[in-house]
Amino acid sequence: MKNMTEPLRITSRQNPRIKDAARLRTGRERKRQQRFIIDGAREVVRAIAAGIQCKEAFICTELCDTSEGGMAVDAIQLADVEAFFVTPDVYAKLAFGDRLDGVIAIAATPRRGLGDLQLPPRPLVAVLEGIEKPGNLGAILRSADAAGVDAVIVADARTDLYNPNIIRASMGTVFRENICEATSAATLAWLQSLGLSIVAARPDATRSYTEVDLCGGVAVVLGSEADGLSDGWRGAEIMPVRIPMHGTADSLNVSTTAAVLFYEAIRQRGH
Amino acid sequence: MKNMTEPLRITSRQNPRIKDAARLRTGRERKRQQRFIIDGAREVVRAIAAGIQCKEAFICTELCDTSEGGMAVDAIQLADVEAFFVTPDVYAKLAFGDRLDGVIAIAATPRRGLGDLQLPPRPLVAVLEGIEKPGNLGAILRSADAAGVDAVIVADARTDLYNPNIIRASMGTVFRENICEATSAATLAWLQSLGLSIVAARPDATRSYTEVDLCGGVAVVLGSEADGLSDGWRGAEIMPVRIPMHGTADSLNVSTTAAVLFYEAIRQRGH
Repeated sequence: MKNMTEPLRITSRQNPRIKDAARLRTGRERKRQQRFIIDGAREVVRAIAAGIQCKEAFICTELCDTSEGGMAVDAIQLADVEAFFVTPDVYAKLAFGDRLDGVIAIAATPRRGLGDLQLPPRPLVAVLEGIEKPGNLGAILRSADAAGVDAVIVADARTDLYNPNIIRASMGTVFRENICEATSAATLAWLQSLGLSIVAARPDATRSYTEVDLCGGVAVVLGSEADGLSDGWRGAEIMPVRIPMHGTADSLNVSTTAAVLFYEAIRQRGH
Repeated sequence: MKNMTEPLRITSRQNPRIKDAARLRTGRERKRQQRFIIDGAREVVRAIAAGIQCKEAFICTELCDTSEGGMAVDAIQLADVEAFFVTPDVYAKLAFGDRLDGVIAIAATPRRGLGDLQLPPRPLVAVLEGIEKPGNLGAILRSADAAGVDAVIVADARTDLYNPNIIRASMGTVFRENICEATSAATLAWLQSLGLSIVAARPDATRSYTEVDLCGGVAVVLGSEADGLSDGWRGAEIMPVRIPMHGTADSLNVSTTAAVLFYEAIRQRGH
């Protein structure tokens, strides 16, 4: 912590820092402040480790007396994040959902674009277009991380990447630096400039995903459950694939579809 | 509808049928009444089609004026389910979540056991032990349906199968007749009596799921995210497998794990 002094203690829910932080629950305020809120010990540690610039941290010592909470407080100190102790009452104003780790950080929104993505040879890239539900988007980021997808582009997003539900559902993997936002048009042009093959998940495709070579440099493109992919992903150079459906329900959840595709690519690559 | 007469109209939230139905939100009351509540046009149609015995239906004509709502009302009539018209106010007392299809049915809880499962040669069976979250369990049932898993056994369940969140997340696939509940011990004995090979998903397994032959008669067993599988699934005849993890997060969501395993089996089987 700054100068290694004891952090200030905030006891009022009306404190201006607390009020500014609590406002970050809304996307509009995240855009205005260019900041977002990270709730949870694991998520705070992952954000700091991924190079997210944390501006301040609120620690409720009554709640973070766990090994995970202690690790998060350590990371906050080591990263020289300005820290404040808060009372349980003040903490409750900031906390999100039912997990109470006692550690919350406020971070500057990263500005990551396509040009910031670092790709290995033969990359596996995921493109997620217009996914509606933050929980689904977060779950896909978690699966992409687990599978070892090299980069994720969130295209024509319907929510900002740092929505609390995305952070939570992604288990903090949204902070990884191989994730960025872009328009669908810019994403398509970028993939083509790199010479990647493009595979688009479409329920009406005739070819099964297992019949396509996913070993080369490839982008797997997924659209929203309600609307599917936009027409920009219908070009002759784009290979539509489907996941076979053998049941009574007409579709898979988009996060399930994503995981099945990612892991098929990983299987083909022998990882 | 009974005798093809116009259904009775219920206008009071205090009507005893309405009060009994509203109580079915709790697992305790579902157990006591041996009934459960189905909310949604698609779900009601799937329940009737799957042979679930619907005892009564509540229709809000102001809300079900859609093609899906009309199909559900048709199915209710054809299945000779006792139907009641309800006002929007009464309907609101019964409805669950944010979808308002205007159609709700009350069904008798099926008593399905291991002996009721009909298996083809070389079946693909899924066993789900102690899954905590109804939404996760429902999502797995949806994926099992889509992949064409032959039977699903919900073992040592922490919630009853007809929890509204399971019905919703499963898109009504929970009603399929190849799904039953059993204890883990009975399930293991039953699988062994059939000579099925047993593959257990474990994060600490050394063998990857892609290295195992899933083409024969096989049961894929998944446990809870928090606690994993119980020790009953550690025998010498049980093959532990893992899904490779290449990222910073330490695990996949259990519904994601399930879908990846089911679809690998389907891929190996050439379906």
